Amino acid sequence: MKVVDLNCDLGESFGAYRLGRDEKILPLITSANIACGFHAGDPGVMSRTVKLALEHQVAVGAHPGLQDLVGFGRREMKLSPREAYEITIYQVGALWGFVRAEGAVLRHVKPHGALYNMAAVSAGLAEAIAEAVYRIDPELILVGLAESELIRAAKKTGLRSASEVFADRTYRPDGSLTPRSDPGALITDEQQSLQQVQQMVTEGKVRTTQGENIAIFAETICLHGDSPHAVKFASSIRSLLETEGVVVKSLSHTAKRLS
Amino acid sequence: MKVVDLNCDLGESFGAYRLGRDEKILPLITSANIACGFHAGDPGVMSRTVKLALEHQVAVGAHPGLQDLVGFGRREMKLSPREAYEITIYQVGALWGFVRAEGAVLRHVKPHGALYNMAAVSAGLAEAIAEAVYRIDPELILVGLAESELIRAAKKTGLRSASEVFADRTYRPDGSLTPRSDPGALITDEQQSLQQVQQMVTEGKVRTTQGENIAIFAETICLHGDSPHAVKFASSIRSLLETEGVVVKSLSHTAKRLS
Amino acid sequence: MKVVDLNCDLGESFGAYRLGRDEKILPLITSANIACGFHAGDPGVMSRTVKLALEHQVAVGAHPGLQDLVGFGRREMKLSPREAYEITIYQVGALWGFVRAEGAVLRHVKPHGALYNMAAVSAGLAEAIAEAVYRIDPELILVGLAESELIRAAKKTGLRSASEVFADRTYRPDGSLTPRSDPGALITDEQQSLQQVQQMVTEGKVRTTQGENIAIFAETICLHGDSPHAVKFASSIRSLLETEGVVVKSLSHTAKRLS
Amino acid sequence: MKVVDLNCDLGESFGAYRLGRDEKILPLITSANIACGFHAGDPGVMSRTVKLALEHQVAVGAHPGLQDLVGFGRREMKLSPREAYEITIYQVGALWGFVRAEGAVLRHVKPHGALYNMAAVSAGLAEAIAEAVYRIDPELILVGLAESELIRAAKKTGLRSASEVFADRTYRPDGSLTPRSDPGALITDEQQSLQQVQQMVTEGKVRTTQGENIAIFAETICLHGDSPHAVKFASSIRSLLETEGVVVKSLSHTAKRLS
Repeated sequence: MKVVDLNCDLGESFGAYRLGRDEKILPLITSANIACGFHAGDPGVMSRTVKLALEHQVAVGAHPGLQDLVGFGRREMKLSPREAYEITIYQVGALWGFVRAEGAVLRHVKPHGALYNMAAVSAGLAEAIAEAVYRIDPELILVGLAESELIRAAKKTGLRSASEVFADRTYRPDGSLTPRSDPGALITDEQQSLQQVQQMVTEGKVRTTQGENIAIFAETICLHGDSPHAVKFASSIRSLLETEGVVVKSLSHTAKRLS
Repeated sequence: MKVVDLNCDLGESFGAYRLGRDEKILPLITSANIACGFHAGDPGVMSRTVKLALEHQVAVGAHPGLQDLVGFGRREMKLSPREAYEITIYQVGALWGFVRAEGAVLRHVKPHGALYNMAAVSAGLAEAIAEAVYRIDPELILVGLAESELIRAAKKTGLRSASEVFADRTYRPDGSLTPRSDPGALITDEQQSLQQVQQMVTEGKVRTTQGENIAIFAETICLHGDSPHAVKFASSIRSLLETEGVVVKSLSHTAKRLS
Repeated sequence: MKVVDLNCDLGESFGAYRLGRDEKILPLITSANIACGFHAGDPGVMSRTVKLALEHQVAVGAHPGLQDLVGFGRREMKLSPREAYEITIYQVGALWGFVRAEGAVLRHVKPHGALYNMAAVSAGLAEAIAEAVYRIDPELILVGLAESELIRAAKKTGLRSASEVFADRTYRPDGSLTPRSDPGALITDEQQSLQQVQQMVTEGKVRTTQGENIAIFAETICLHGDSPHAVKFASSIRSLLETEGVVVKSLSHTAKRLS
Repeated sequence: MKVVDLNCDLGESFGAYRLGRDEKILPLITSANIACGFHAGDPGVMSRTVKLALEHQVAVGAHPGLQDLVGFGRREMKLSPREAYEITIYQVGALWGFVRAEGAVLRHVKPHGALYNMAAVSAGLAEAIAEAVYRIDPELILVGLAESELIRAAKKTGLRSASEVFADRTYRPDGSLTPRSDPGALITDEQQSLQQVQQMVTEGKVRTTQGENIAIFAETICLHGDSPHAVKFASSIRSLLETEGVVVKSLSHTAKRLS
């Protein structure tokens, strides 16, 4: 029986600013990655989003990012592993506070934007982040790009990890994502996206930009909730998976430690 | 046998900026209130200060403030109780992360600056802060101005509290501090300060600006570590207490819940 | 011949966040108050908004606020006159940079939110802001609440001022706005709003909550562009004024120094 | 007759935090680069530092940096040329406000830290910064690393530029500075530093880490004021120059446009 988790980045509003359709996407997903105030989110948004996610019985995770609100945490920054450790502890701790205040349990951590991308290729940053997560709670699951340094670091540290795949991004022969700056990075045809999801989840494979199929480990799929179209597409993915007999459930049921 | 705690605000450096003589004051105190990044402190400073306090076997507490770095959290701001709740959860959670990462336990919470002053007189803000602390961990001790709304709120919420007194501030007949804007707010004569400490700790009384003695509950004394002179004075207070046979120990041993 | 200016707060987006329908409201107004990065706006938003306003041949002004992004500059804060002076210089200077980069001229300054409200009633803050504006450029026009301390301070300092009135707010017998916290603060009936505008502009009077008419000086009307409904209502106001034969033009043509 | 400018980064305090001995270094320098609030400085510090520099009759310049207060603007960040343009306009405009408020003239702009380093090697960023400075005021002088892209961009844009050299850093055969991460990046021997200054200013040459002498254009020397030792060393440099008959004066007297 195939099982997969569906995750989405939530709580990205800030002060007077609204971003995302959190209420619309929550019924479709099993894991929520909630922004922690550095790239998006503020204490009020975090408090409300944690409650909302729990009401939908969705697993709550922290989504720490670079301290760059104006750049939404998407601009790479030269960070030492020590600094990556520290900003991870700070943000995961802050979100933990809101989860704990609701009597619930924090389930996972997924870095955001540039921090996610940098941790995918830098073993030093990846290990610092994994160390931070482990020290806060060794039961937390670390979510990272499939086949990335972050997944390797999680395993090395003794954390459970979850390999994330994308429905709307193309893959290169080495398993990495085609950079957004390249033409062909995004899959704009909805049917092709659904086909990629199906192949990844049911066969454990993805067809690369070079045309061959490579193995990929799809434990969680990243959905988006920032437009009505994105929500509709997320709904199509969920339907497809149910039609295929795939069980959609959150990571805490499935993620395993490296034996 | 008289018992008292000695606390100090620590970890108030930020980025390239250094503030306070944390290493010098730590051997003299039993509780450290560590800034949480809103009015002072950053993830690196918090990480290092938590470790340093633990090395000195000092009880670690969170010192949340208003989100006003340029004003060092000292400028009053119109905050709703809801907002006070949210910024308390966020900051206490963040500091908890660093304490947890060291395998230690967070012991207390003491609001900073304008948040401390506002919570001393506003029942709404005081109850919101007490609620936040309780929901994170009902074992936490809430430190506030003796006889203040914050102490009342802690008791009402079911938290243990600790009444704080000051060596270098004068008291008014109603038990409140003389505002800093008034002449005679500060005690500049060292001998007079020590005498006030002795009277508060051993007799449970303080002589007000009107000359009469009123009852005051002195569970913890606020010391300062921001100048060589302050450290020297803190040392005199500690010596005085030991000479008087007062046991100096952290709050977790003494603070009690309202029966 | 009656003349009035129509102003609107613009450039209130931030980073990934969009706020306001700047393109829709610009054809209807004659003065744009552009956020300066403290309560809203960022360097990119400021740059684009200045250009957009100039393309619509709208007078460009600075809209400085309190340094409280999460509270959108709406939470009152204890600020010294000196601090008010400094944050005004900083923000007006920053916006001036973008105006100057386009070869244009900065025309006016209107404080935002809590700073606007505080400067309406505090002579100290009002004079500090007027002083800041005058020292940057004595030709700038200072926009404030009609009959407020800010208008008085502008005149005292030697600046030209512009008295601002509101279409959708009720007035008390002393000429002040009914506080938002009171029932009846807002005029929700569109017809009543238009009637108030007509009376203020053509007769120089407003009917207060007590029912009598008092004198009010209406040099500029504050419009909103934050919802499709607000834009439609702004359009109705503009039509009304044109039907009444009122000339709508920016303040630099009309504002005068106190002789 | 040899002429050189001596510059120093000033106004790097922030809120309750003090950094630098501005009063001690000002009598020794001819140009002050004042932080603009992104990596250091706040409106109050900027206001006071501008006044102090003017009292010492030192040329006032803007010192814009990356928006990274916790990293003091020293951490490289992926910035588009457009973003570099925008943050330069914002910060230079803000500082211009304080200079204008004192009835004085802003003379130069020198990027800070990582922005300075990035603009030294990226033509795109360098041209964006030069464009920003030119559009604010074509009379401003752009200060950059000698032989860098920033100097080239200034000339291309039509700005006057000033080539900066360092007393305490070693140079590589291509004229670039030895990176701080390399051993031998810093000159710790004071005598060797003074010798390097003398050779750069009087001969227009510097001895590289490979031992040969290369041409270097030394229009301004960067001094430091962040420690008593730094101030004493700055004083030695000034004495040396005067002994050698070098005229120490600010750039506005000497910087020329590319003919």
